[in-house]
Amino acid sequence: MLTTHPFDDDKLREECGIFGVAGAEDAAAMTALGLHALQHRGQEAAGITSFDGEHFHTHRALGRVAGNFDNPQTMEPLKGSMAIGHVRYSTTGETALRNVQPLYADLASGGFSVAHNGNISNAVKLRRELVREGSIFQSTSDTETIIHLVATSQYRSLIDRFIDALKKVEGAYSLICMTSEGMIACRDPLGIRPLVIGRLGDSYIFASETVALDVVGAEYIRSVEPGELVVVTGGVLRSHHPFVKMAPRPCIFEHVYFSRPDSIVDGSSVYTVRKAIGAELASENPVEADLVIPVPDSGTPAAIGYAQASGLPFELGIIRSHYVGRTFIQPSDGVRHLGVKLKHNANKPLVDGKKVVLIDDSIVRGTTSSKIVEMMREAGAAEVHMRIASPPTMHSCFYGVDTPEREKLLAAQRSVEEMRQYIRADSLAFLSIEGLYRAVGEAERDDSNPSYCDACFTGCYPTRLTDLEERESPDQFSLLAERVG
Amino acid sequence: MLTTHPFDDDKLREECGIFGVAGAEDAAAMTALGLHALQHRGQEAAGITSFDGEHFHTHRALGRVAGNFDNPQTMEPLKGSMAIGHVRYSTTGETALRNVQPLYADLASGGFSVAHNGNISNAVKLRRELVREGSIFQSTSDTETIIHLVATSQYRSLIDRFIDALKKVEGAYSLICMTSEGMIACRDPLGIRPLVIGRLGDSYIFASETVALDVVGAEYIRSVEPGELVVVTGGVLRSHHPFVKMAPRPCIFEHVYFSRPDSIVDGSSVYTVRKAIGAELASENPVEADLVIPVPDSGTPAAIGYAQASGLPFELGIIRSHYVGRTFIQPSDGVRHLGVKLKHNANKPLVDGKKVVLIDDSIVRGTTSSKIVEMMREAGAAEVHMRIASPPTMHSCFYGVDTPEREKLLAAQRSVEEMRQYIRADSLAFLSIEGLYRAVGEAERDDSNPSYCDACFTGCYPTRLTDLEERESPDQFSLLAERVG
Amino acid sequence: MLTTHPFDDDKLREECGIFGVAGAEDAAAMTALGLHALQHRGQEAAGITSFDGEHFHTHRALGRVAGNFDNPQTMEPLKGSMAIGHVRYSTTGETALRNVQPLYADLASGGFSVAHNGNISNAVKLRRELVREGSIFQSTSDTETIIHLVATSQYRSLIDRFIDALKKVEGAYSLICMTSEGMIACRDPLGIRPLVIGRLGDSYIFASETVALDVVGAEYIRSVEPGELVVVTGGVLRSHHPFVKMAPRPCIFEHVYFSRPDSIVDGSSVYTVRKAIGAELASENPVEADLVIPVPDSGTPAAIGYAQASGLPFELGIIRSHYVGRTFIQPSDGVRHLGVKLKHNANKPLVDGKKVVLIDDSIVRGTTSSKIVEMMREAGAAEVHMRIASPPTMHSCFYGVDTPEREKLLAAQRSVEEMRQYIRADSLAFLSIEGLYRAVGEAERDDSNPSYCDACFTGCYPTRLTDLEERESPDQFSLLAERVG
Amino acid sequence: MLTTHPFDDDKLREECGIFGVAGAEDAAAMTALGLHALQHRGQEAAGITSFDGEHFHTHRALGRVAGNFDNPQTMEPLKGSMAIGHVRYSTTGETALRNVQPLYADLASGGFSVAHNGNISNAVKLRRELVREGSIFQSTSDTETIIHLVATSQYRSLIDRFIDALKKVEGAYSLICMTSEGMIACRDPLGIRPLVIGRLGDSYIFASETVALDVVGAEYIRSVEPGELVVVTGGVLRSHHPFVKMAPRPCIFEHVYFSRPDSIVDGSSVYTVRKAIGAELASENPVEADLVIPVPDSGTPAAIGYAQASGLPFELGIIRSHYVGRTFIQPSDGVRHLGVKLKHNANKPLVDGKKVVLIDDSIVRGTTSSKIVEMMREAGAAEVHMRIASPPTMHSCFYGVDTPEREKLLAAQRSVEEMRQYIRADSLAFLSIEGLYRAVGEAERDDSNPSYCDACFTGCYPTRLTDLEERESPDQFSLLAERVG
Repeated sequence: MLTTHPFDDDKLREECGIFGVAGAEDAAAMTALGLHALQHRGQEAAGITSFDGEHFHTHRALGRVAGNFDNPQTMEPLKGSMAIGHVRYSTTGETALRNVQPLYADLASGGFSVAHNGNISNAVKLRRELVREGSIFQSTSDTETIIHLVATSQYRSLIDRFIDALKKVEGAYSLICMTSEGMIACRDPLGIRPLVIGRLGDSYIFASETVALDVVGAEYIRSVEPGELVVVTGGVLRSHHPFVKMAPRPCIFEHVYFSRPDSIVDGSSVYTVRKAIGAELASENPVEADLVIPVPDSGTPAAIGYAQASGLPFELGIIRSHYVGRTFIQPSDGVRHLGVKLKHNANKPLVDGKKVVLIDDSIVRGTTSSKIVEMMREAGAAEVHMRIASPPTMHSCFYGVDTPEREKLLAAQRSVEEMRQYIRADSLAFLSIEGLYRAVGEAERDDSNPSYCDACFTGCYPTRLTDLEERESPDQFSLLAERVG
Repeated sequence: MLTTHPFDDDKLREECGIFGVAGAEDAAAMTALGLHALQHRGQEAAGITSFDGEHFHTHRALGRVAGNFDNPQTMEPLKGSMAIGHVRYSTTGETALRNVQPLYADLASGGFSVAHNGNISNAVKLRRELVREGSIFQSTSDTETIIHLVATSQYRSLIDRFIDALKKVEGAYSLICMTSEGMIACRDPLGIRPLVIGRLGDSYIFASETVALDVVGAEYIRSVEPGELVVVTGGVLRSHHPFVKMAPRPCIFEHVYFSRPDSIVDGSSVYTVRKAIGAELASENPVEADLVIPVPDSGTPAAIGYAQASGLPFELGIIRSHYVGRTFIQPSDGVRHLGVKLKHNANKPLVDGKKVVLIDDSIVRGTTSSKIVEMMREAGAAEVHMRIASPPTMHSCFYGVDTPEREKLLAAQRSVEEMRQYIRADSLAFLSIEGLYRAVGEAERDDSNPSYCDACFTGCYPTRLTDLEERESPDQFSLLAERVG
Repeated sequence: MLTTHPFDDDKLREECGIFGVAGAEDAAAMTALGLHALQHRGQEAAGITSFDGEHFHTHRALGRVAGNFDNPQTMEPLKGSMAIGHVRYSTTGETALRNVQPLYADLASGGFSVAHNGNISNAVKLRRELVREGSIFQSTSDTETIIHLVATSQYRSLIDRFIDALKKVEGAYSLICMTSEGMIACRDPLGIRPLVIGRLGDSYIFASETVALDVVGAEYIRSVEPGELVVVTGGVLRSHHPFVKMAPRPCIFEHVYFSRPDSIVDGSSVYTVRKAIGAELASENPVEADLVIPVPDSGTPAAIGYAQASGLPFELGIIRSHYVGRTFIQPSDGVRHLGVKLKHNANKPLVDGKKVVLIDDSIVRGTTSSKIVEMMREAGAAEVHMRIASPPTMHSCFYGVDTPEREKLLAAQRSVEEMRQYIRADSLAFLSIEGLYRAVGEAERDDSNPSYCDACFTGCYPTRLTDLEERESPDQFSLLAERVG
Repeated sequence: MLTTHPFDDDKLREECGIFGVAGAEDAAAMTALGLHALQHRGQEAAGITSFDGEHFHTHRALGRVAGNFDNPQTMEPLKGSMAIGHVRYSTTGETALRNVQPLYADLASGGFSVAHNGNISNAVKLRRELVREGSIFQSTSDTETIIHLVATSQYRSLIDRFIDALKKVEGAYSLICMTSEGMIACRDPLGIRPLVIGRLGDSYIFASETVALDVVGAEYIRSVEPGELVVVTGGVLRSHHPFVKMAPRPCIFEHVYFSRPDSIVDGSSVYTVRKAIGAELASENPVEADLVIPVPDSGTPAAIGYAQASGLPFELGIIRSHYVGRTFIQPSDGVRHLGVKLKHNANKPLVDGKKVVLIDDSIVRGTTSSKIVEMMREAGAAEVHMRIASPPTMHSCFYGVDTPEREKLLAAQRSVEEMRQYIRADSLAFLSIEGLYRAVGEAERDDSNPSYCDACFTGCYPTRLTDLEERESPDQFSLLAERVG
């Protein structure tokens, strides 16, 4: 049993990061670096597909980029000047290799490779229809649905078949595709998941976040626009807008937690937004205390913002070990309860006798907030005040983020006061939804037409959820009955 | 570089062995045992799929059955009372896991799993047509063609779709399929590749050879007939004959080399046939000598037959090491030439000063016959006479046997006398095609309608070879451009 | 080539951490946890030996504690209520398993197991003498010398033999030993390396740092005193002082960098000392700037101290990736220069146009300070001022810390101004030795009798260095001529 | 549980094979080949040590030579023109790497490496004395005793120290040692275990059997004589006879089973001796039958001899699978009883209705003889007569052969008639001890001074057995209390 992520385990999880480069020597090596910078978006599997002008070359592996894509034997065969890659956090138990992206298909027009960040909310329905017509699926991934829609489209050119396929799907998707002709990047009409364009010399780069551009030394150009389809062929980038124009609804949680603080998301510095969140939190929920302590590491920028706005000193009251990976398992039952301190340890001489404000980014199940409050008390804290840098997380996400079912979301089941009692803090407060919109630079939330997808806080979903709606129907379609060992 | 199979490397290779059991507790474990007994039919990969009444469970691996299917972690998940399995020798460089069988597809009617021994000689043509209609292939295996034909068939019931698919394919196939309803076993109309039926208690078993029945303690019932389709559902076996009846043409090389000597192939004991071959060889090609020496191990039964018919003593003049697997690589260039003795060593005190008759089953490239003659001479043999227990191998096989291209077949390029000079033997003789037919119990070979497929000796192919015929056409279809690392 | 530790690679490295527990169920599991908390003291190998009342059980492995000591198969055999453990950073290329501790020997009195932090400075001389008398060494570790001295001592009781051995060695050693009778912990007469005593219920615990007590929930009692030898038998702890009393000289660098900030070293909170160092640094070397930026993560406490003392805002101008382990190798030559950003990335929107003060704990070779200054400039920093939280590191350590040879220590070769030019900072300043003593709570450094070992800064070594002195002698003794692959 | 060696598991096991070469380029690679040819003498571990004129290089591994010593990464570091190697079958559960030979020690005179075949029968006593004087043992191997005796000897030159050490040990030893000066090979005064000398160009080779000379293309010169010590330095071979001359007593079981049939042991062809054994067996114990069937593979030469002498046909009634290694474990409990047929299968069409004579080399526990008789009956044999090509094995070996304790030796507990009932054969007969001596070329066995060690048949041990005699003494010395995981 894994017990070493007492704090990180209780987070929402971005499911994927994607990267692509067209027109660069060493395209696969650049992709490995880019995926490495996106590793926080998915640690369970990684894959790279390259194209060398004749063949597509793929390596997929369970686990992280480091260890899988940093040896010459793996990288040498990934030849060519064009490559796409994917990191993945799997939501189901099915971490089988066949679900690891990029996916590939041999179409009549030639090879077609896809990396997808997001979630298709009518994938099960589409899959059922395709199988009835003779399509054979090899994975349980919703992404494969898009490929079969392309393969069976009645249009002639690949680009028309691709647009035809996208018009049939609903939900969230940022996609990077590769054919023998070139690279295609696109973002769903609402732009729910991020995707940026960069440039390095003559090559174009696409990535989920700007940090992946930084790591390869590329210049950040702009985001792919919601509903935009960008094609790179022969070193030239062309933009298409095949969909009816809609008001964008990018995911606001990218600012709260998913994206790295050094990324620029849809034009804003994530670090700056998080500090602004901390300042809003201090202004909405002040507390008399001696120290502001971040829950490391994701709470740190908001804690700095809180400390600067409140005038309280920012201090490291919790020390995080660098050496705890996902893999450390408690060596025996007898010492399992000790696990919480493997990753984080109270800085006892600092905390002893002090009133502390703890800053964390969110509360999901609440299990670990309890442990950290207890750790502060054991270290001698006089008072423990918890401040959360986002509104209560009350609804599941269906757009490519792993959220527990609603009954496991603490905020969906309890009031704030009940939550405070549950975690045994002296006080507990969340940022308001209005405060969050102010921190991202909006005057206020336009409730009839919000400028972000904030469904996890508000339950206001910007698309239909076809598969969810049909789930109670008797005609259950079991996804792929084969279990591969 | 592998140099340790100096003698075995120069053989034709059966490409596959298949096994299936319906209605047995521990079906997957029985399948592992059965595949182990069929290991000589394919050593490069193995796979087992089981069905537990609800889910299909699969494990596929590169390498042998032992080491891959003998640990509880692998076997425990392969639950259920029905299972099929496959061992494979891959003819191309593509030993990727995705080509390892059993193949599986999620059809509209439910799961469908297939293990195939043979080769579809119009698979490339069918594949091209299917891809044009939107089918997406995941492997380069000809077997996948059958599955897509089933998936896209216009018939309603699975059995009708399966028969519809088989009527479109040409070539050699023994198939064992599994659905949630039961097991289907069939053999192509000519019965080129073998397939037998066994029974153990209430369960039915299908296997390429009877030794796989022996190993699980099952009773041998009979062969599946050429063109027969056998269905086991609910513990009951039903026989179908959906094809136009044709005169059978089972592979005669099964008797010469492929099958194990303790198997019964189409009613005859392989050991008895091989001894009869040796006796025919002694009668056709006698020689004055001191000793009859088998080239171990495949030449041994024919050598015993030769010794008994000729009255010469049978002796072990070549000792084979038990410890040479496929994996021993010469540790350095400087000692590479020594490799030949790693696997076989001359029994020098026996051979020294003697006239010896060496008995081998066939000559393919001839490279290793030279080495073994040289080894005998270095050990002091006074004369070395080579006798081959089959006619000269002059033509490629397109029915599931790995043969070199014709220009590499020694007998296709040289006369028997030229071959003798090449291997530097004092004399060389092959069994005649008539002698071979006599050994298998026929009075003679009916040239207008031979009772076996003997194309490797005679060039007389019993089916069309569509893909081969189209190979010169300009509209080349490249199989699967993705290379998976 | 490893290129992913651009900043951490340029550090001095503690060579070892040790842990022992006597009288606890699950002693080996507790030791694994304790070693995990000491992982920063040595990441290249780890080992645990337990005693079950009858047998000693050992597992040693290259690599970290996590991954090697967190599975039941490894831990289950490590039975018993007494265990010691060791983590190691190897200074030489010889990372062979035989050098991994705890070392073990079967003495006439029974089993004897040792874990050692430190370095014996006359080990080569002693070894040469022992080999001449017939002792056979199995490792190149200086620790084995101690064991042979015990084995060949003329005294009768083990404790007398052990004291006899220690009186022959010079240098730094904190040792935890285990025999069938009990546990012995001791610290050299100067107390150069740390060692603390903890208690949990009826069990006694010894560890290099208090964080290892925290992780197992033990209470911190006190440090083992310099020159003290503590014996635990039958649940009772007894203290011995076999050496002539000397003024202690604990290593001051434990406060600067080696120890974790949440540890208490010789009575002081490391975090508090580091903040005091930052404050001293701000007072000695103020600078007009916009932001104080820590070089993560070791520079952070000093940066907080500097920011609080100077009134400048503390900001995260460099973001560290959580996913860079030691193992990530650049996938190809073409992208090798990009490596520096894999681990750290500039927070460009924050830094752009600002005057920044960078706080780092030390400069060793200086190679990476250059890179980080360059990274700040590329991110648009207007001015870059480097402040170092220790005096210039000018001398090698011979007491168990890995230091480069003097010619590679930047401060041994250049003036501060030359160093500034080398790293291309706008200004560079170090903490003074006096400032460092003030930060650890001393009024000043008593130059005739300093209260710490500060040889790396001052060249003032507190012991003889026999092996170093003899190194030029012609009678070279080659350590262990066998290379084990 | 291993169940795949139903027949081979019930054998006595030679514990070791050794090989050395002095003066050859690629010495380690030649050693790997030589060890490969000796693999039947020990399959559990292998090791090679080379000397390059300056350093000794060692690689030791659990498992076979193939897989461990056939890749460039392992072999490349084993540089030098001199190398020794060892294969090992461990008798105890302790297969730890530290017991794998060659052993190595850094003596005052330089490196000293040893490979040993045999067993020192006073090793425990010597070890106890050495430990009392301060020697530290690293293995539980009796061979290490010799090294410590050399290290602590009072003589000056290495060769004198070595002879001094050998004079203190009793038991069986063939040794190959390597120092920086050259190679030493020797055989105990009785010559119990074999050792031969070969030559290839300017290099000398030592090996347990001549097949290891064959594999590297070397010429067989002669056996090392009992009590002879051969030294190769500077390309020159010198012979010493430091011991009092005694009548030799080489192991007679080398001819019965241990050595390969293509080896020459102490001047005789093993194949020829085994055929003579078969002929003696036919003459002493004739039977009316239809077929002579060898229990493969060790029974084959004797079966050929029996068939030729009796005039009955030699036939393959049991077929052995090539693909059963040591590693195949039954995949589940439910099929465990099927295991016996994995490795051997009855050739049913041949055996059915026939009276058969089975020839095996020995009966140890008898467990598998029962199974093979049962297998013949299941295949329809009318009568099953078992003939054993050696006398009943009634006593344990203490000279380097793994024998079960006496209470597990079937022949030590039962009469021949009781054994026949136990294995359920129609008749059972063993070769007489006189017949065995005749087969090896002696007129008869001189009971007062037999020319072979035949203790396993007769209980007549040629040396003292000090450790065995002292075993009941109360002063038990526990070998190495540390268990390494």
